[in-house]
Amino acid sequence: MLAENVSIIGLGLIGGSLARGLKRAGLCNTVRGYGRREAALQQAVEDGVIDDYSLDLREAVAGADLVVLATPLSTTEALMREISDVLKPECIITDVGSAKGVVVAAARKALAGRLAYFVPAHPIAGTEKSGVEASFAELFENHIVIITPLTETDRGARDTVAALWRGVGATVVDLDVEHHDEVLAATSHLPHVLVYTLIDCLAQMQDRNEIFTYAAGGFADFTRVASSSPEMWRDICIANKASLLAVLDRFEKHLHGAREAIAAGDGGRLMDVFSRAKQARDAFARNTGR
Amino acid sequence: MLAENVSIIGLGLIGGSLARGLKRAGLCNTVRGYGRREAALQQAVEDGVIDDYSLDLREAVAGADLVVLATPLSTTEALMREISDVLKPECIITDVGSAKGVVVAAARKALAGRLAYFVPAHPIAGTEKSGVEASFAELFENHIVIITPLTETDRGARDTVAALWRGVGATVVDLDVEHHDEVLAATSHLPHVLVYTLIDCLAQMQDRNEIFTYAAGGFADFTRVASSSPEMWRDICIANKASLLAVLDRFEKHLHGAREAIAAGDGGRLMDVFSRAKQARDAFARNTGR
Repeated sequence: MLAENVSIIGLGLIGGSLARGLKRAGLCNTVRGYGRREAALQQAVEDGVIDDYSLDLREAVAGADLVVLATPLSTTEALMREISDVLKPECIITDVGSAKGVVVAAARKALAGRLAYFVPAHPIAGTEKSGVEASFAELFENHIVIITPLTETDRGARDTVAALWRGVGATVVDLDVEHHDEVLAATSHLPHVLVYTLIDCLAQMQDRNEIFTYAAGGFADFTRVASSSPEMWRDICIANKASLLAVLDRFEKHLHGAREAIAAGDGGRLMDVFSRAKQARDAFARNTGR
Repeated sequence: MLAENVSIIGLGLIGGSLARGLKRAGLCNTVRGYGRREAALQQAVEDGVIDDYSLDLREAVAGADLVVLATPLSTTEALMREISDVLKPECIITDVGSAKGVVVAAARKALAGRLAYFVPAHPIAGTEKSGVEASFAELFENHIVIITPLTETDRGARDTVAALWRGVGATVVDLDVEHHDEVLAATSHLPHVLVYTLIDCLAQMQDRNEIFTYAAGGFADFTRVASSSPEMWRDICIANKASLLAVLDRFEKHLHGAREAIAAGDGGRLMDVFSRAKQARDAFARNTGR
């Protein structure tokens, strides 16, 4: 038993999948949920995803030994502030946010007396679907969870959170907050911005009906992430603004270089870009099997 | 029997898959292949993909009733020029190029006396793999083939090519050359440029090892097309330069707008873009099942 009572704040795709995984693996005694949609929470109890729920945030965390924050990033600081004084003294607090600098900054302000028990974490897993209805216990299997401990973080608290994620099938690695945010900006946040922007751009063209009619399988793969939650991604983009803008500016320069090569009919330069990219993508496929 | 003897010039993923599909459906008597790699052609004969092959282009098409050009776009005009005077008088010539304006222009120059029997076509199907080794007979099933007939195109020749594609499982639609090139620039050519450019950009970053290590499933989907043939895509970008630059410029404006919204922390504007994109992507998924 890693933690007697776990409270999951925000029972969506990630929170719901974690709840299912914890219960399946018997890693805790009770899982309590907190969310905005009571019907979904009731259904989650009926389906055995959680043991009970509360629509009152402070009540939801009152007896918890471990609290998981799994709501959009813009809500994090206010949530921390509201729960801080009702938590049990050694209650571990962790989160699942896709940007960590902003979460750590929020914790320094809103959980000042509890930093030893705050363990920032980010499961690199998900689908383009949202909500507890789309959750499943296997979501984290063979996926990486990045923990970005603070200097203040208690080793035992960090190890409990790591064990929890391992218990639902994930591999855990530690990374600096800044490094996490740079890497995720490049590998996840920028691609989402590109796809959302492309789809919105195409949907405003006169040819939009033909465009979506004659799209091939590659387009479906390429654009799948645009079905993800707009609210979550709005928050991520703003939360990780500095790192995202840095890699976006870099990308815009590369894209403009490709544009110039196309305009000049410079096949050699395009061949260089495309060949290097294929080499890197093929290596990624070999290393990950994807 | 749609055509007694078919010659496929360029036995790669598309040419090889068409050869397999034609033979499986019994739509022709013999399929002859032409390519650059003799070992691959020999293997294709052994595997029953083709009946025979020639390394001599003119010999490869000499007795054909239907010739399919399935090589990278930059080779099209020279191939047409070289085969034009050895073809049987009513031999139908078709192609599989992803850009059609450039192919039609080549045909007007190199197949001037034979335009009635030239049927430009584009099967919207493929995988990120290349070569006859990756070909399979089912590649075109439930995919669209766009035919862009010229005013000169003989109706019977067009119908034969359409029947051939239907025979291997595809749905055939007719489109204007210009319209085809605009739509495909938006839906296929631009996404390939974005992904190739992004991967090349990331592969040059200091963090590149972590970037590719911590990439999630969305990244794998998003970037899969970067494993496609660089040579083929270089040719497509240059062949469809005008339409590609038009949609690329439009996209760059949208992307810069998103950049400004992120920099300003303008959550409302990002939410608008992301929500509209999600709506369009969800509609695409509903309509296509992808």
